[in-house]
Amino acid sequence: MKILIIGGGGMIGRKLAGRLAADGKLGEREISELTLFDVVSPDAPGDSAFPVKLRTGDLSNVDEAKALVAEQPDVIFHLAAIVSGEAEEDFAKGYRINLDGTRHLLDAVCAINEYVPRVVFTSSIAVFGAPFPDAITDDFHTTPLTSYGTQKAIGELLLSDFTRRGMMDGIGIRLPTICVRPGSPNKAASGFFSNIIREPLAGAEAVLPVSDDVQHWHASPRSAVGFLLHAATIDGTIVGNRRNLTMPGIAVTVGEQIEALRTVAGDNVASRIRRVPDEKIMHMVSGWPRNFRADRATGLGFQADASFEQIIRAHVNDELGGNIG
Amino acid sequence: MKILIIGGGGMIGRKLAGRLAADGKLGEREISELTLFDVVSPDAPGDSAFPVKLRTGDLSNVDEAKALVAEQPDVIFHLAAIVSGEAEEDFAKGYRINLDGTRHLLDAVCAINEYVPRVVFTSSIAVFGAPFPDAITDDFHTTPLTSYGTQKAIGELLLSDFTRRGMMDGIGIRLPTICVRPGSPNKAASGFFSNIIREPLAGAEAVLPVSDDVQHWHASPRSAVGFLLHAATIDGTIVGNRRNLTMPGIAVTVGEQIEALRTVAGDNVASRIRRVPDEKIMHMVSGWPRNFRADRATGLGFQADASFEQIIRAHVNDELGGNIG
Repeated sequence: MKILIIGGGGMIGRKLAGRLAADGKLGEREISELTLFDVVSPDAPGDSAFPVKLRTGDLSNVDEAKALVAEQPDVIFHLAAIVSGEAEEDFAKGYRINLDGTRHLLDAVCAINEYVPRVVFTSSIAVFGAPFPDAITDDFHTTPLTSYGTQKAIGELLLSDFTRRGMMDGIGIRLPTICVRPGSPNKAASGFFSNIIREPLAGAEAVLPVSDDVQHWHASPRSAVGFLLHAATIDGTIVGNRRNLTMPGIAVTVGEQIEALRTVAGDNVASRIRRVPDEKIMHMVSGWPRNFRADRATGLGFQADASFEQIIRAHVNDELGGNIG
Repeated sequence: MKILIIGGGGMIGRKLAGRLAADGKLGEREISELTLFDVVSPDAPGDSAFPVKLRTGDLSNVDEAKALVAEQPDVIFHLAAIVSGEAEEDFAKGYRINLDGTRHLLDAVCAINEYVPRVVFTSSIAVFGAPFPDAITDDFHTTPLTSYGTQKAIGELLLSDFTRRGMMDGIGIRLPTICVRPGSPNKAASGFFSNIIREPLAGAEAVLPVSDDVQHWHASPRSAVGFLLHAATIDGTIVGNRRNLTMPGIAVTVGEQIEALRTVAGDNVASRIRRVPDEKIMHMVSGWPRNFRADRATGLGFQADASFEQIIRAHVNDELGGNIG
């Protein structure tokens, strides 16, 4: 089978590509070819039994989407997005990439007769906006309070409708905030949830802009890759018409994150977090989801991390070779 | 104040224009000018104290939207849409008018500096898709099962986001199915709910394609105009960030509709309904909402009809000059 990863140069895209290269197959089917597409040149994963093509381009260009699907990949992972902070700063760019780009992709798929690929779309818990119940259930409405969340919610609606009409076979997964996010900070406004774990573990100081009692919903990069693989192989008829699923995660407060860090890495590491309240970030975060009941996804076999401590230990193993700075 | 009605040639647009002409003002403010825009030439309402401009064009043309808002109307009613049946038949046309057209309008408003008009958008209960609870609450998710419903749900999301960012001041109202819809049937798949009342009252036979126990959510054209006027004048700060409101209505079964017709017009009229089950329509209708708890809108002062009998009597008065055929 042929696989296309749009956003193959991003953090999750690279990890997904690496996993596919290591596995050699997706579900029961051998992978014959993998294409990684991104706005900047993506890296090829390490050794793989199948050829890997690297492509660069702009998804908001309608011809780009057509070219990408022309070879009719069996599975398309659509991970590309302008992240929340940047989509809020640059209104036009967010809509151009996150909405128009997604629509171009779906239209391009739809334009090919008798081509019904599985399309896995990474949505986000940013489709939800406060006020919330204690735990957000699967039938709670999507009233985003960011342009990013709006664009993701629209992508979900398009995915469902194109799927219902038999033009593709889509599964949308609402990712929790990915934590611990490796590498350098991006423009996601939620970056501090990772920074306060990653930087102290690497021997550096991290800034915490919100109070310790802020609760949020997390999944490790490892879980996120697991969600993507499961979404790519799940039987769509079991999912039914409601194609967008809130992924399971771990609800923890910032205080609980820090305590987990202390348990895993000790007081010295935990003391590298500096509290610098930021009104603007606190205001944004106050509109974000805190906790979910992801019953549908859990029932469909999507698996969350066991605890926030496990999330930290996975980061130490996967990114730091087991070493704490 | 200047008012623009996009979709001013449609049934609701005409009734709204007539009401504005009769009132001479909207809320407390005198109307200085009314523009009616539609794809076919709209009719001017009767006597009005203000000038009425009639315009024809295609909202999916980006320049059309720019031209429409260039004169900076204070209130824009965006009622134009390809209806449910047609949007399902012609996928591309539905997206072009209902999604692209709406987006062009919002983008055109956003492009004018320091111009923040009230935009009243008619959404629909078609944004909801089965399965449903007994009554759909204000925080129930939007999982439409038609392309029309999808396009309306996307319009709602855009309206909220553009409003949140201060680019306009939008209110989206999810209209119940309008009943009794006067005039000749359009391509709305829900047309039979009106046909079975309107045609018998006019002395003609009507076909009922579903069973008597189908329950649905209705509002009279008179109520719909009331919703629009209230949405145009309500204080947006009280509405808050959740700008899309399910309008109150009357939940009745088809059997109850027929009994109300019998009460108002007698056995002879009610006997003009012929039952011709249609599997395709029954399947569509099975995915439609039946009943709501429109608490937010009711709390914000939107008023439903008192009963289905009252809906029929309003039709007899407003459309038939009090005469039953």
